[in-house]
Amino acid sequence: MPFPSLPDAFFRPRNIAVIGATKKAGFGGGIPAFLKRNGYGERLFLVNPRETEIEGLPVYRRLTDITGNIDCAIIIVPKMQVPAIMKDCLDKGVRAVILETAGFSETGDEGRTLENDIKELIQGTHTRVIGPNCVGLINPHDRFGSTEVDFDEIRPGNIGVIAQSGVFGNIVADWSPSQDMALSALVTIGNRIDVDESDMLYHFGADTKTDVIVLYLEGAKDGMRFMKAAREVARVKPVIILKSGRTEMGKKAAASHTGSMSGDDALYEAFFRQSGVVRASNFQELFDLARVFSREPLMEGPDISVVTSSGSLAVMAADAAHQLGLGFPDLGQETVEAVRSRAPAWMNVKNPLDVGPSGLFGTALKAALNDEKIKGVLAIPVIPGTIIKSMVESGMDPALLYGDPESIRKTAPGKPALVYSVGSEFWTKLVKDMFGPHFTLISSPDTAAKAFFALYKYRQFREKIKNEQ
Amino acid sequence: MPFPSLPDAFFRPRNIAVIGATKKAGFGGGIPAFLKRNGYGERLFLVNPRETEIEGLPVYRRLTDITGNIDCAIIIVPKMQVPAIMKDCLDKGVRAVILETAGFSETGDEGRTLENDIKELIQGTHTRVIGPNCVGLINPHDRFGSTEVDFDEIRPGNIGVIAQSGVFGNIVADWSPSQDMALSALVTIGNRIDVDESDMLYHFGADTKTDVIVLYLEGAKDGMRFMKAAREVARVKPVIILKSGRTEMGKKAAASHTGSMSGDDALYEAFFRQSGVVRASNFQELFDLARVFSREPLMEGPDISVVTSSGSLAVMAADAAHQLGLGFPDLGQETVEAVRSRAPAWMNVKNPLDVGPSGLFGTALKAALNDEKIKGVLAIPVIPGTIIKSMVESGMDPALLYGDPESIRKTAPGKPALVYSVGSEFWTKLVKDMFGPHFTLISSPDTAAKAFFALYKYRQFREKIKNEQ
Repeated sequence: MPFPSLPDAFFRPRNIAVIGATKKAGFGGGIPAFLKRNGYGERLFLVNPRETEIEGLPVYRRLTDITGNIDCAIIIVPKMQVPAIMKDCLDKGVRAVILETAGFSETGDEGRTLENDIKELIQGTHTRVIGPNCVGLINPHDRFGSTEVDFDEIRPGNIGVIAQSGVFGNIVADWSPSQDMALSALVTIGNRIDVDESDMLYHFGADTKTDVIVLYLEGAKDGMRFMKAAREVARVKPVIILKSGRTEMGKKAAASHTGSMSGDDALYEAFFRQSGVVRASNFQELFDLARVFSREPLMEGPDISVVTSSGSLAVMAADAAHQLGLGFPDLGQETVEAVRSRAPAWMNVKNPLDVGPSGLFGTALKAALNDEKIKGVLAIPVIPGTIIKSMVESGMDPALLYGDPESIRKTAPGKPALVYSVGSEFWTKLVKDMFGPHFTLISSPDTAAKAFFALYKYRQFREKIKNEQ
Repeated sequence: MPFPSLPDAFFRPRNIAVIGATKKAGFGGGIPAFLKRNGYGERLFLVNPRETEIEGLPVYRRLTDITGNIDCAIIIVPKMQVPAIMKDCLDKGVRAVILETAGFSETGDEGRTLENDIKELIQGTHTRVIGPNCVGLINPHDRFGSTEVDFDEIRPGNIGVIAQSGVFGNIVADWSPSQDMALSALVTIGNRIDVDESDMLYHFGADTKTDVIVLYLEGAKDGMRFMKAAREVARVKPVIILKSGRTEMGKKAAASHTGSMSGDDALYEAFFRQSGVVRASNFQELFDLARVFSREPLMEGPDISVVTSSGSLAVMAADAAHQLGLGFPDLGQETVEAVRSRAPAWMNVKNPLDVGPSGLFGTALKAALNDEKIKGVLAIPVIPGTIIKSMVESGMDPALLYGDPESIRKTAPGKPALVYSVGSEFWTKLVKDMFGPHFTLISSPDTAAKAFFALYKYRQFREKIKNEQ
């Protein structure tokens, strides 16, 4: 059975109304300009009884004054006006409403009453609502968004992100380019009078552009429905969750932030384990895991290898891997020979494979990736910054020392292959350029271990499901 | 009793011999050029029987051919020549020998025998030796180093770093500028035939330029002596250690890397706790803690506050703080009133202090820092990238939204104050420029909690010692 999707009008609207458009700075002025800049000028209808023209576009007094069809409305009016505007949206048959206005249940009883009034209005209708108290969504594939972001920076891709608060969603979007995250869409769900995290899980579960789902959660709106959705969707796509509000202090902070009830963390933990959901333990790890799952194949066994020019960093990776239960087996005879035959006498051909200054990084990396026993490889190329800088500046091709990452990776596309590096800015940028397109960058040796572990466990989970069917 | 120091000649040599200097690329050519570039030309004596002139300097056949005094020798000859060269160093009365040559005990029995021969040579003499199998040290204060680094990038400061392998030391030095780490010195101790981690702990313990000591350790050369040194030095300065080789796999990797015996991790853990040593749990945390201890005062109590414009990030910090046992108390009446009097109705004046888009970040930050109950503050300024970019580009001073971090910090110099941010590159750079000089940057909300905890626990430790005396 396919998962229920949200109306396409949320992500690829034909005609968009911005209700509360203004000439002033802020959301009211920013969003119309942003949409126009991104090619939505001809399909953009602005509504505000006190304006006549904004950004060269006519301004309508009411939504119902617009003659054509409107499938998506972005509401940014003051909260007391929202019920009337929402009625207009219903009258107009708008399928997708993005309600950004804040000041509802998150501020106390008065706001809660108003929020409930709006909730009642939409019940039983064909109109779906995202918000209030959010910034809606962005869809980088079509450069559509209900919040201003820089689509020249944010990359379209296959990661669907579900956030709750608007600021958090915005900064995640802003951060994503430097984190090498390419997004199918990012949605902030706010106070969830209608669309909630469960709807979003199902939506991204069904969305063909989304391969990985990322969710930041303080507390589920409906715990039972959330668990059902997460369980069902995790069976078909990786679902990576950062659940905060784990502790008493965190719960208290979450309650005053989004009014979320964070629930018992031990229950969530047990549920995540059983249902194949990948749990990130912190913010950076959430994005590392998202990046890895969005680019790498799952891992077919627990055994990994590290190829490095820093023994120390390999020891850190080995510690982290061991703690998670991954294996670091001896390399196969063929692998050892492939490297040994070219290696200087001092070089230990072992796992981890520390090539030191032998110049055999590429050789070792290819051999390890093609070792039958090894199911995932972490490359840790490091080199003193002044050495590599003067080499490159004098015209040397770094491939002489590191091989050609593209062709090396092509010999083993079915195994996850990560790359970590550290050092001067010159070097880390070079690694990003050289390895980044072919090996997935990871932010620490520890996180690399965590990512391999998650790729392996999720594959086990998928295999288990297959066998049950 | 003062701690024993290494000869000053290691860090501020008067006359330096480079034995094994060459015209070729690599260490032999690089180090003489590097020292000359950094102003050591007139005090630099090159030795190599097969050369006559390098970098415009005369080359001596043997160290003993040099007429003047030599207090520091850097040895980069092939390993079989090392015993003869070392004899020359002894004859010449060189106080400080940096032996960079590799190929000794780390490569097997033959190398171990040679290493032992050298060890015997130096025993009972006044010559101290760092190495072999290392790159020696760097001292950014005097732009002296036995390995090529970029002293235009690496900042002189108060953090003393002890590393074992050369590559690791080099990449840490390369990384330090982007990590905002300012170094008193960085020493790689290699195979430790003489100077080891305990000597270095004592040395940095006595060094007036060093306020914080950072040690990456796979295994101590002499466990009992190391514990004694760490215990004694931690009583006077913070000692931050990343101990790897914690697990079976890590130990195995460490043994093949540096021949270190990593020992029982539980014993180390217990020892660190008792003796006030700060243990970092990973590579990034090691540098975060070093940066914080090098810049911030210790924390006088367990209670912290977070001032933020992202509730989500505050929840993450609260979770991490609670898990460590820190407190997140309600703010004092005065603090609440100072903020409340200027705050919009929707704003929750609580701890964490989420100022949202109120523009009161600076007001709230100052109030929290000056709250008597609060002993440490984490600032988390975040804002959608497009908003701040267009504001700044249209000439707005960000201080209108965030206050003046310099004057705010000056109101509470005695409390640790950290700053974390995330988002677009434009924004994170702005935060670094605005807050970075006055608040210490931290790499995650979790690490902020860990840093506060370490500052608090170390203060407790110091108080306990004081009371015992």
